[in-house]
Amino acid sequence: MAQDNLAAVLYKTKDLRLEQTPIPTIADDEVLLRMDCVGICGSDVHYWQSGSCGHFVLREPMIMGHEASGVVAKLGAKVTSLKVGDRVAIEPGVPCRYCEFCKTGRYHLCPDIQFCATPPVHGNLVRYYKHAADFCYKLPDHVSMEEGALLEPLSVGIHACRRGGVTGGDVVLVLGAGPIGLVTMLAAKAMGASKVLITDILQSRLDVAKELGADYTFLVSRDSQETELVRKVHELLEGHPDISFDASGAQSTVRLALLATKSGGVAVLVGMGGPELTVPLAGAVAREVDIRGIFRYVNEYPIALAMVASGKINVRPLVTHHFGLEQSLEAYEVARRGLGIKVMIHVQPRDANNTHKFTNC
Amino acid sequence: MAQDNLAAVLYKTKDLRLEQTPIPTIADDEVLLRMDCVGICGSDVHYWQSGSCGHFVLREPMIMGHEASGVVAKLGAKVTSLKVGDRVAIEPGVPCRYCEFCKTGRYHLCPDIQFCATPPVHGNLVRYYKHAADFCYKLPDHVSMEEGALLEPLSVGIHACRRGGVTGGDVVLVLGAGPIGLVTMLAAKAMGASKVLITDILQSRLDVAKELGADYTFLVSRDSQETELVRKVHELLEGHPDISFDASGAQSTVRLALLATKSGGVAVLVGMGGPELTVPLAGAVAREVDIRGIFRYVNEYPIALAMVASGKINVRPLVTHHFGLEQSLEAYEVARRGLGIKVMIHVQPRDANNTHKFTNC
Amino acid sequence: MAQDNLAAVLYKTKDLRLEQTPIPTIADDEVLLRMDCVGICGSDVHYWQSGSCGHFVLREPMIMGHEASGVVAKLGAKVTSLKVGDRVAIEPGVPCRYCEFCKTGRYHLCPDIQFCATPPVHGNLVRYYKHAADFCYKLPDHVSMEEGALLEPLSVGIHACRRGGVTGGDVVLVLGAGPIGLVTMLAAKAMGASKVLITDILQSRLDVAKELGADYTFLVSRDSQETELVRKVHELLEGHPDISFDASGAQSTVRLALLATKSGGVAVLVGMGGPELTVPLAGAVAREVDIRGIFRYVNEYPIALAMVASGKINVRPLVTHHFGLEQSLEAYEVARRGLGIKVMIHVQPRDANNTHKFTNC
Amino acid sequence: MAQDNLAAVLYKTKDLRLEQTPIPTIADDEVLLRMDCVGICGSDVHYWQSGSCGHFVLREPMIMGHEASGVVAKLGAKVTSLKVGDRVAIEPGVPCRYCEFCKTGRYHLCPDIQFCATPPVHGNLVRYYKHAADFCYKLPDHVSMEEGALLEPLSVGIHACRRGGVTGGDVVLVLGAGPIGLVTMLAAKAMGASKVLITDILQSRLDVAKELGADYTFLVSRDSQETELVRKVHELLEGHPDISFDASGAQSTVRLALLATKSGGVAVLVGMGGPELTVPLAGAVAREVDIRGIFRYVNEYPIALAMVASGKINVRPLVTHHFGLEQSLEAYEVARRGLGIKVMIHVQPRDANNTHKFTNC
Repeated sequence: MAQDNLAAVLYKTKDLRLEQTPIPTIADDEVLLRMDCVGICGSDVHYWQSGSCGHFVLREPMIMGHEASGVVAKLGAKVTSLKVGDRVAIEPGVPCRYCEFCKTGRYHLCPDIQFCATPPVHGNLVRYYKHAADFCYKLPDHVSMEEGALLEPLSVGIHACRRGGVTGGDVVLVLGAGPIGLVTMLAAKAMGASKVLITDILQSRLDVAKELGADYTFLVSRDSQETELVRKVHELLEGHPDISFDASGAQSTVRLALLATKSGGVAVLVGMGGPELTVPLAGAVAREVDIRGIFRYVNEYPIALAMVASGKINVRPLVTHHFGLEQSLEAYEVARRGLGIKVMIHVQPRDANNTHKFTNC
Repeated sequence: MAQDNLAAVLYKTKDLRLEQTPIPTIADDEVLLRMDCVGICGSDVHYWQSGSCGHFVLREPMIMGHEASGVVAKLGAKVTSLKVGDRVAIEPGVPCRYCEFCKTGRYHLCPDIQFCATPPVHGNLVRYYKHAADFCYKLPDHVSMEEGALLEPLSVGIHACRRGGVTGGDVVLVLGAGPIGLVTMLAAKAMGASKVLITDILQSRLDVAKELGADYTFLVSRDSQETELVRKVHELLEGHPDISFDASGAQSTVRLALLATKSGGVAVLVGMGGPELTVPLAGAVAREVDIRGIFRYVNEYPIALAMVASGKINVRPLVTHHFGLEQSLEAYEVARRGLGIKVMIHVQPRDANNTHKFTNC
Repeated sequence: MAQDNLAAVLYKTKDLRLEQTPIPTIADDEVLLRMDCVGICGSDVHYWQSGSCGHFVLREPMIMGHEASGVVAKLGAKVTSLKVGDRVAIEPGVPCRYCEFCKTGRYHLCPDIQFCATPPVHGNLVRYYKHAADFCYKLPDHVSMEEGALLEPLSVGIHACRRGGVTGGDVVLVLGAGPIGLVTMLAAKAMGASKVLITDILQSRLDVAKELGADYTFLVSRDSQETELVRKVHELLEGHPDISFDASGAQSTVRLALLATKSGGVAVLVGMGGPELTVPLAGAVAREVDIRGIFRYVNEYPIALAMVASGKINVRPLVTHHFGLEQSLEAYEVARRGLGIKVMIHVQPRDANNTHKFTNC
Repeated sequence: MAQDNLAAVLYKTKDLRLEQTPIPTIADDEVLLRMDCVGICGSDVHYWQSGSCGHFVLREPMIMGHEASGVVAKLGAKVTSLKVGDRVAIEPGVPCRYCEFCKTGRYHLCPDIQFCATPPVHGNLVRYYKHAADFCYKLPDHVSMEEGALLEPLSVGIHACRRGGVTGGDVVLVLGAGPIGLVTMLAAKAMGASKVLITDILQSRLDVAKELGADYTFLVSRDSQETELVRKVHELLEGHPDISFDASGAQSTVRLALLATKSGGVAVLVGMGGPELTVPLAGAVAREVDIRGIFRYVNEYPIALAMVASGKINVRPLVTHHFGLEQSLEAYEVARRGLGIKVMIHVQPRDANNTHKFTNC
């Protein structure tokens, strides 16, 4: 096996380095993966720039990367679900399997979950990476490695829609047209939403949203008046949204979600904002608008894969930039500057592991 | 107002007549409708051929028709939600509004529901018909009167999918490719099912299903062996269906639904079969396969309309035959012989009430 | 029929008067009731003291009272569910029966609901009052008129528990031991909660809670430190509550509900607090603690009656003060001063309409 | 450690033997348990008498026992949740932790679950037994070892009630007053059912049910007429049951459950009956009576323990017979003859491991 195991390692705030790391040894229920695609997420940039994200703090060097796909290079002794050469998407969190949360189907809340590139757990922006075999999902031939990596953000969108209970005929409001807002919109449409209105403060993002299928877009300016925004949302949708998603985390969008949602509806908070927010809770209470946060995803990887493989969701247009592993720092810089939507790092030459021929999009 | 109020009246078994009837007077919360499209349903044919359906028995002459759209001709004193000239789809059942079922959101189970063309309640295959205003749904300009009438069977399919809990990524089995099987398939796909396998004993129906978007079709012969059918379903789907719909009512398909569904899944019984069935219940119990019947629909008309209006579901190809009101007996005969999928009766000249120009399909 | 129809009429802020009013005439689906018991609610006092509650504002004189029971004195033409002499509990809100909320089983959110003593709708603290017959629930002989009136606050507690999803084995935190906190506790226990911890800033209320069955009580002082409160709650419960109820409306208790609830649990907001609150939402989001407000109740009167009639819930100890209709002003004064728990006004001599002999409690 | 490891081993149909077996060695996540109480279940008797149960067939000698409690004798290297000397209830099924069912919170449907005394997995009617530590639940001091063993059947009852959705105010019908019918009744009452009617063909069992809190009992004779039974159930309950439980498995009781349940209600099939049943499905379909089977339990042991520990459910009266391990064959004979309700085998002297002094009941 190759000895090269170049990795993108975050040492401390603003100190991301490319360096060699040991190739990991695997346990009986694990596989060794030759990594292929690794996307960059907003949280990655946040760790890089600030050394922390929420209450997770970087204390020692950590390999980055958690939106990823790879090829099985080696099997643990007990692994029967995969074989060497299988192309897989990697669900980055592996829970303890023993606690109450694991047993009740909410393993994403497991306090002992090991999640890629969440300190102190190493991620997979590296040549070789080991992972629990049952959290690797074999990709059909016609699904590309990039799509495999994109299952990660898509799972967030699907989890948000499942938490919100999106179903046929729902009218949906998505606040924020960044990658998470966009995958939430894609998931909502695929699960039957009949109207989706998406908002942002950047017209360029709304243009992408429109291309991806948004029924309505709405450019919000930072100094928009709240009641006017609510009125405008209702006007565009010819009614109140059944379910609103805040994919921004800003206090203003959380407030808008609470105010605009239909009585008896749901406001889903997907974005991670400041620790304390001032919100018009009494109105949400009196109108029984439920408020539900989301944390990552749970049991949604198989759904995301099924929806991409069946063509119900097309995530390819989300990728706007491509870099090689050796260009990781440049890639992070592009992500940091908020250019485009999704930046993809190719540990292998692009499409090298794709059985089918894919056209670039 | 015109005095002509020609109606298709079922006198008794196999005695369907066209005759003049009085134009009804309306209550304060009702509207008078000038009828446009009225589809023929299997139950209509059943009443015509046998004088009964389930425990409903025809005892006196009854106007037929319950899959319908019309134009508002007159408003009751308290009606503010509609105006004269509005093109509407008609939800045919009007519940009592007072009982426990009405108050808990399951008004379709209201024991006093007045449902078109369910004895002794008159239907709307007639020139003028009155109906509760709040059970008439205004059609947008771009939705045709035929589509308005088709919301009725589509609502059955949507109700079945909501009862079954169809959501993103589900693998679905539909047994029977008649009109109800087809609308169930359409609804399942629109609500996120990633794979739908539909079966029938007629290849012609499967061909229509394929055109409408079925991922897999499976021609079953009447003497197919049960275990072989189960095996074949699992083989085609590369797994067990999460949710199975019996849209046939035959004992054999109900059995197949129970046997083929994944442990922990749902078997939805949409078809009305014989009163007594012999089924492998113990297996369904031990695998926690839930069995849920459906009765018509409830609160699904607005969803059906939203999904047709937004283009998420295209019901137009379902209509294979067109007749005028005066040709109703001929239309019923075509429906009885099972030719095509959906037979539509036009009380007005076809597309006369469509604001937009529609191409025939 | 008697001509005396004395009523407690709120003219404006702090101007509550006893005066004669006309005996109402009834519609076909209504009954005339000879009122018996009418409890005083916090919102009644609020209207009296401030002329408003939430966004409801008193603009003209309004008869008070909405927690009530009475005896059927006269039947509307179409009423068959009741007969003259029936002792009934009165669900005070009558919805429009036509809107989306009414049809989907959430009639409490009906924008046109007519709710007793919510401006401009008259209440039932009066000798004769008319009401929709289907919102009157016949009391079995062994249920007293006081219990009938107490079904109103109890329905709030049951609604809160149903919204929170309380079921067998749940660990529950109730913040606030006023009448609503107490009925929530009673409902939670009756629905299977295995541990209920209730908090308040008054020891006297906690003593009542203890008597009514609280497993743990916890006296909070206004200057308690938040993290210490959370720690103490977890210590007393030997774990995190599955479901927390804020029955106070204060920012501090809403915050405590969010912080103390188990990951994946539910924080139910029962109390009506200030319009804007500053809360640690990001933590609730990241731990997927759902936030659900409640507005009154829906379809819970029959449940409340069933639970009182079966002895599963004993609401009698809640009543601490009794007054006659003529003493209404004195009764309101006692309620305003927060003495005791529930103040009951008897329009008829106490227990006059009770078939069974009841001992005072 | 003692070398005596006497076990009750089923060799083949009707061949149950007491014999020495090796003391098992434990894995890192397991504990060795010194067994205390082991109840006898209907399925145990079934295996003994027929060598099989459902599709599980005894092919080699198997230690019996799965309703059990014990004391921790030795800890696996990674076990931190328990300590030596802890008194525990043993959830008898240990799933694979890797499959879709395990991850979605339905581990009881795991196809690879290892379940005590389900061939070929050994049970725990033996002196020393090893088990996954996380499926052992520490008993509080005041909960007896017998109660610990009884958590097993109680978990079945709680699972049935959770599957049926029993909540406050529900009217419940339980068909069959054997141990499973009784625990279902106890669970239903504890979860808020306001009326429970229980039926059986033996008056002696109904007498026990009455003592345990049944609101109504109804003695059914084998030749009762179906429609008359339905009528009688409705008469006794003054209405239709919201939820019916068949705890018998007989075709006649499954039929009764379907026929008697309220429209929109749930019929839960708890009993394991013949593989094929002839049932009036069309009626259940048309009335949307959901049919849900149950298989064992999932995540219900902690609930059962919480409800017993809090006193909400008293399971002690269920035990009618006590035997020592050496008398196991006699115990099985008593169970086979259907004498009493629950037969308990004491591997240790009765109450030897009970910290608190318990009175016999």
